Amino acid sequence: MTETSLTVAVIDPSRARAAILEEGLRASGVATVVVLPDGPDLQARVASLKPDVIVVHLESPSRDVLEQMSGLSRQAERPVAMFVDRSDQTMMQAAVDAGISAYVVDGLRAERIKPILDIAILRFNAFARLQRELDEARSELADRKLIERAKGILMTRKGMSEEEAYKLLRRQAMNEKRKIVDIARAIVTAADLLG
Amino acid sequence: MTETSLTVAVIDPSRARAAILEEGLRASGVATVVVLPDGPDLQARVASLKPDVIVVHLESPSRDVLEQMSGLSRQAERPVAMFVDRSDQTMMQAAVDAGISAYVVDGLRAERIKPILDIAILRFNAFARLQRELDEARSELADRKLIERAKGILMTRKGMSEEEAYKLLRRQAMNEKRKIVDIARAIVTAADLLG
Repeated sequence: MTETSLTVAVIDPSRARAAILEEGLRASGVATVVVLPDGPDLQARVASLKPDVIVVHLESPSRDVLEQMSGLSRQAERPVAMFVDRSDQTMMQAAVDAGISAYVVDGLRAERIKPILDIAILRFNAFARLQRELDEARSELADRKLIERAKGILMTRKGMSEEEAYKLLRRQAMNEKRKIVDIARAIVTAADLLG
Repeated sequence: MTETSLTVAVIDPSRARAAILEEGLRASGVATVVVLPDGPDLQARVASLKPDVIVVHLESPSRDVLEQMSGLSRQAERPVAMFVDRSDQTMMQAAVDAGISAYVVDGLRAERIKPILDIAILRFNAFARLQRELDEARSELADRKLIERAKGILMTRKGMSEEEAYKLLRRQAMNEKRKIVDIARAIVTAADLLG
């Protein structure tokens, strides 16, 4: 098997099993394997290690663990591949909802790990890209609504035309070296507060 | 193993292997297994069967097959779980890009199939939901831009205020029993054509 430059963080509550998993990952050609003990500094350890993927091995997952791993994955922007010995449908749904990139039930064999991690990383990136596009579209929509509201306020209060209102927003943004949407937000907030 | 009400469509170019896969699926508790021969009416067969998941088994995938399965998955709005005996990184990327919901390399064992299919279905739904939200946000954004442009055209050409322009759009929409965005589109198209 070819060596790969992947860096993998392993989280396993059982030290003995973590050692077996570590060995399996090395056997499958993963270059850097770091076993992280679960503890208060886990988040910081992951942040400084910046692993390509976080591998978690559990007998069976709980909602608490899934939420913790989901937070870890989101904050570190790293995929989580989870190997569990058994699972029910409810926990599967919770794992997918939590954004776990691979959720493998009873499938931990050294020779199969590498493609699972590769797919988990690719899937994580695809999902993150879609999520980013959604965030951008929603943010642009929210910005437009805010600018529309601010223009409406200026038109009503100052008897301006739509064009004049927009020009005023733009001029103020240039003067203050801020974005038009920030000026719009200030106007809407002020109007809400001052009536 | 418990019976499950899943309906699974199997696509496998080898009849002998399809039979083994079918047996494996039945052993793992899948109630309805239908082996579909690859052919010109594959799309129609899948559309009428409406399987919970399409299971594809290949020695190694090609871009052509991935594209075909991607189209099948999209048109039938059904997840595809693909089992391949071997794969390289490029095909993995192509599979994820094609929206294949499970891509399992060298992992076809009867006792592991069921959780893989369950996860594939859940993952497909999660991805489809995100995609739908993105489509909605983009469509709302495009509608707003179109309405803004139409208002701008009316304001310039007819010397209307922003409010008058919007009211005109709304009145016309009510008269024609159409959406405001459709009236806006007509105005923008006409302005582009007529100058």
